[in-house]
Amino acid sequence: MIRANDPHLHSWIQISPNSDFPIQNLPFGIFSTPTRDPRVGVAIGDYILDLYAVCQEGLFDLLSLEDPSVFHAETLNPFISLGKPMWREVRERVSELLRNNNAEIRDNHEVMKACLVKCQEATMHLPVKIGNYTDFYSSLEHATNVGLMFRNPESPLLPNWKHLPVGYHGRASSIVASGHPVFRPQGQTKAADTELPIFGPTRELDFELEVAFITGRATDLGSYVMTDEAEDYIFGLVLFNDWSARDIQRWEYVPLGPFLGKSFVSTISPWVVTLDALEPFRVPGPTQEPPVLPYLEYEGYKHLDINLKVYLQPDGEDPALISQSNTRHLYWNMNQQLAHQTSNGCNLEVGDLYASGTISGSEPGSYGSMLELTWQGSKPLTLPNGATRTFLEDGDTVIFKGYAERNGIRVGFGEVRNKILPTL
Amino acid sequence: MIRANDPHLHSWIQISPNSDFPIQNLPFGIFSTPTRDPRVGVAIGDYILDLYAVCQEGLFDLLSLEDPSVFHAETLNPFISLGKPMWREVRERVSELLRNNNAEIRDNHEVMKACLVKCQEATMHLPVKIGNYTDFYSSLEHATNVGLMFRNPESPLLPNWKHLPVGYHGRASSIVASGHPVFRPQGQTKAADTELPIFGPTRELDFELEVAFITGRATDLGSYVMTDEAEDYIFGLVLFNDWSARDIQRWEYVPLGPFLGKSFVSTISPWVVTLDALEPFRVPGPTQEPPVLPYLEYEGYKHLDINLKVYLQPDGEDPALISQSNTRHLYWNMNQQLAHQTSNGCNLEVGDLYASGTISGSEPGSYGSMLELTWQGSKPLTLPNGATRTFLEDGDTVIFKGYAERNGIRVGFGEVRNKILPTL
Repeated sequence: MIRANDPHLHSWIQISPNSDFPIQNLPFGIFSTPTRDPRVGVAIGDYILDLYAVCQEGLFDLLSLEDPSVFHAETLNPFISLGKPMWREVRERVSELLRNNNAEIRDNHEVMKACLVKCQEATMHLPVKIGNYTDFYSSLEHATNVGLMFRNPESPLLPNWKHLPVGYHGRASSIVASGHPVFRPQGQTKAADTELPIFGPTRELDFELEVAFITGRATDLGSYVMTDEAEDYIFGLVLFNDWSARDIQRWEYVPLGPFLGKSFVSTISPWVVTLDALEPFRVPGPTQEPPVLPYLEYEGYKHLDINLKVYLQPDGEDPALISQSNTRHLYWNMNQQLAHQTSNGCNLEVGDLYASGTISGSEPGSYGSMLELTWQGSKPLTLPNGATRTFLEDGDTVIFKGYAERNGIRVGFGEVRNKILPTL
Repeated sequence: MIRANDPHLHSWIQISPNSDFPIQNLPFGIFSTPTRDPRVGVAIGDYILDLYAVCQEGLFDLLSLEDPSVFHAETLNPFISLGKPMWREVRERVSELLRNNNAEIRDNHEVMKACLVKCQEATMHLPVKIGNYTDFYSSLEHATNVGLMFRNPESPLLPNWKHLPVGYHGRASSIVASGHPVFRPQGQTKAADTELPIFGPTRELDFELEVAFITGRATDLGSYVMTDEAEDYIFGLVLFNDWSARDIQRWEYVPLGPFLGKSFVSTISPWVVTLDALEPFRVPGPTQEPPVLPYLEYEGYKHLDINLKVYLQPDGEDPALISQSNTRHLYWNMNQQLAHQTSNGCNLEVGDLYASGTISGSEPGSYGSMLELTWQGSKPLTLPNGATRTFLEDGDTVIFKGYAERNGIRVGFGEVRNKILPTL
């Protein structure tokens, strides 16, 4: 048991029971304020602990950390490249400093002022410089839904799907943080009943509800990560919106896969929840039948029980809950994904992002995209204000929230929230 | 006309007429020697001009360069991020220093010793930290050959092919320099006559003959690069071997495209030949019919006449020429590729790499992969020693060479050369 996960811990900072950021979470992110340039922080309730300030106050002096400048950086990469023992050491020390029986910050007003920032006064940034981005396709229900709509309803899954975690390389440069506007992309589309394609704004803008993990350890080209080693490479997880333009994707994607239908933007939540903080929320995965090849076998509980919610907020209205899903629905787990990714010797870099693919449950209310929720536009969603949606409209804001909960402890991700603006 | 391209220029360094690196070329790369840590160099005949040393000797003092440390770097990224006017200014000044009428280095033995390194004493490195990598599919003949083999021989091209430069995101981390060993990758494959896949070393290891361009200027998310602006973003070109495991690719690639069948390694030539140096070798492209959409229209000569050669060298034997192709065979040009890549607002980064896709001509001797040269293994190649090949074997070395030639001036790329070693 990791000490910082103890459900009996309490902080001297007052934290609402609904907060995503109790003392058992302690996610890492990059923030700035008008007086603090970008740096590493840890979320605690409605506050951010400024780790660079904590260093400067000498409160990390007993750690084995050699270079405190890793916390004075525009990305988490320098910190996470120090490796898992250091991620743990820092998280345990932060937990200690924030515990209600620890006076080091609590009873020193000057130190507290230096180290604590109100969330509402901070701007959150993209937490990681992303080297490589893979998008998997690991939800059986999502792959089945897509197959039912676009391929053979008799056998919606392609023959390879249950043998390997299907995935593809995505565009890293266009991954941005929550809050960034999403401009409606233009592209080539071709209607089924026309001979020639046209160029213009997509008419089928969609979200995809995903989570993604970030690697904190590199490998050499030609080496492999086994399923039972994967946890040493995974720093933490974020919510991920894999924005998609369905009409662009449909026309372009044969034979080499999604390209401009995805690469206009992807958005992530700014707080990286460590794999350590999610340990108490492990659950068994689904039975994998037919059995997987030996390099994809795994032992223990490698799936996670994270509740996911999607809200759609039309311009000037309240957000409406339109989907509820859960990462436990995933067929393939992160350990299998990483073992597969490296099974050909492909090297990992610090800051790589590996996304799950759209996470859909078995019920229509748990589908992770408008494509599925409206069954390709054939069953429009009706919103509380009476408006309907097949795909997304300009002015809509899409909000993902996610949290794990057990024994009264809620470890959450905050949100990824982006508003759609007209084509530039 | 760019002065450094003048065919009448001669250097005080003696250069063989067969050299890829006359004074009209001046490609940039990253090299090191036992006494020089990695830094920027320019190839000239059998020598490398050490640009960091040139700076230290004061020979760049009159340039508008503010920070000479861009030449004391492990990648070209800091230099190329200075933008095209600076690429030109440096290339023009290097040309001046190397001209036979310029005494600044020529007549100063100490300066010459500081600035010139013999190629054979240097180790070449990956020239660029590659942010994002796209692989296009822009050769009509290659796409047609693949369609004939794997899809419908009646209509081998998919409907989108002549309307847009089809491409996909590739893996950036596994792109390495010429000389790096290529370990035979393992992966899942499934024979047509078996029910279940197996895991093991690929039996269909192949090369793909490509060139790639490197961007030297970033864009913001949501902005576009028009076909007539593309040259301001392209720093230069390299030879590119998009190593492929055909059996892995065939089983995994539906529906999301190539993944582990490609990501085990890609290799590039170490010298980046600037777009400026290739100006004299522009040629008209093929007629594009049906006409392209307006955002893909272009004016002027945007294709290049670069001769490409592939050699296969079995272990302990001499290299055998097995294919001769040319970049003029490409249907889509770089300007169209970059306009398409950004047409949805996708942002560019400094150091992105955009590969052409396999470049095949119309004759069997000009095909750019073993897949095509042996027509899926049905027509094995016979090598000079009597051995035959369908796909590549352990111990084989694959060598690509490339050069443009006109008016007695040869502007070459050197080579990308990699040996295949057994699975690790």
